[in-house]
Amino acid sequence: MAIILDGKEVAKNKEQQLLEEIERLKQNQINPCLGMLRVGEKQDSISYEKSMIKKCGKYGIETKIATFSENTTKQEILEQIQKWNQDSRIHGILLLRPLPFEEELCDAICFEKDVDAMGKESMANIYKGKKQGFVPCTPEACMKILEYYHIPCEGKNIVVVGRSLIVGKPMAMLLLNHNATVTICHSKTNHLAEICKKADILVVAMGKARKITKEYTNPTQVVIDVGIHRTKEGELCGDVDFQNVVDNVRAITPVPGGVGSVTTMQLLEHVVRAAKLTEGK
Amino acid sequence: MAIILDGKEVAKNKEQQLLEEIERLKQNQINPCLGMLRVGEKQDSISYEKSMIKKCGKYGIETKIATFSENTTKQEILEQIQKWNQDSRIHGILLLRPLPFEEELCDAICFEKDVDAMGKESMANIYKGKKQGFVPCTPEACMKILEYYHIPCEGKNIVVVGRSLIVGKPMAMLLLNHNATVTICHSKTNHLAEICKKADILVVAMGKARKITKEYTNPTQVVIDVGIHRTKEGELCGDVDFQNVVDNVRAITPVPGGVGSVTTMQLLEHVVRAAKLTEGK
Repeated sequence: MAIILDGKEVAKNKEQQLLEEIERLKQNQINPCLGMLRVGEKQDSISYEKSMIKKCGKYGIETKIATFSENTTKQEILEQIQKWNQDSRIHGILLLRPLPFEEELCDAICFEKDVDAMGKESMANIYKGKKQGFVPCTPEACMKILEYYHIPCEGKNIVVVGRSLIVGKPMAMLLLNHNATVTICHSKTNHLAEICKKADILVVAMGKARKITKEYTNPTQVVIDVGIHRTKEGELCGDVDFQNVVDNVRAITPVPGGVGSVTTMQLLEHVVRAAKLTEGK
Repeated sequence: MAIILDGKEVAKNKEQQLLEEIERLKQNQINPCLGMLRVGEKQDSISYEKSMIKKCGKYGIETKIATFSENTTKQEILEQIQKWNQDSRIHGILLLRPLPFEEELCDAICFEKDVDAMGKESMANIYKGKKQGFVPCTPEACMKILEYYHIPCEGKNIVVVGRSLIVGKPMAMLLLNHNATVTICHSKTNHLAEICKKADILVVAMGKARKITKEYTNPTQVVIDVGIHRTKEGELCGDVDFQNVVDNVRAITPVPGGVGSVTTMQLLEHVVRAAKLTEGK
């Protein structure tokens, strides 16, 4: 049986420091605050928004919500983002996906408040390997899990399945910065199982429920599962078929309780870091 | 003996179209012009500058040169770039490396004139896989060679050795856009020979003369050599030990006469494309 890489434990481990930081900021009259913007009434977005409000609340981080109907003009939404950019009480801005005019809206978030690295300036920094600004929370969460469990990346063969701008590409860039040898696979990859099987570390962000089975893994492999899906039976599962794989690998993140738990914590940390940047201004 | 992927032929093949385009632009009172900026008196930069002036001249592309001594302030150089940004007679801007304040100077080039994709906006587009703007000439040249010789990338295992922002990373991004499965290797990669050997296509941009020998290749492999070095004996050579490798691969670019020849042509094409964008303005 593999080591279970417990995302909740990783997140929990950061809790105390985060709480102290927030406490300190509040004593300095800074109330960390996340602005979340949603367009439309997609159930997933609403659930995510609710859960984020709750989590922020738990740590004493404020939230501001702006919602727009799907037929809102781009201009109106841009104005809201601009307002938040200029509002010193808002420290981080998160746009919930799916989003119309996605690219333009993301690029409108000012760099200092772009806590999930959605805009082009953040992306350029990730690509360049610069430490300025924020990196997307999901790939960063994967790195934090590896770090917490002392799983080194340097010189390792790491296969990333998925090439999205939200996970796959920034993941590859972060791993490169950590001196991993990175292979990026995707829907057009031939012999995917064979390639995955040879990886020291396998990061899966392909968006297909339980697609990765034993044949994609090896007994010394570490598997990081970024996927999250709800099965017909109402259960949550990842891109990896956990039950099928768990006895054939060295370590694996579960779903739920894996990457997702840490991702949220990273976002909160980013909001707090953004708030800290305003100190003394 | 391998097929020699003849960069000069690839470049030659583009000549006619480029000449016609330039002729047409000139009839419309647009004289394509490249601004080149150099800081210091490094012999390599001077040679490159001279060769570019000559090549541009051959095709009827104008060149403007700005040179600064190494103790020039950043501000002075920035002012020159700004001047060129605003000068409608300059269509492309190229900063010769090495360069002090490199990042800041590169970012100062306006996006429309950034013909070698040195600035952050160009980089963000490459990372995102957007077709806007220009891509760096060297990795683009590699793609053009593959295209010319009808070597498909889709689904292929392509290993890129090198992770620089000038070649390795943009190369990986371009290959991903063409649906290749891309592995990025670098100085910290373990078992480099073994990884390279398995590649369908091997792109080498590691900056080490004749480092890649037979053990890194296989008989069905295509090798693209981005390196260029001058040996003690005064000969030019690449990162690949051509003589050692040529009988063990399916196809290979020579040095000289490989990637470099096409790179220059790409740069000229970019200047002409930038000039075209000003038509009707």
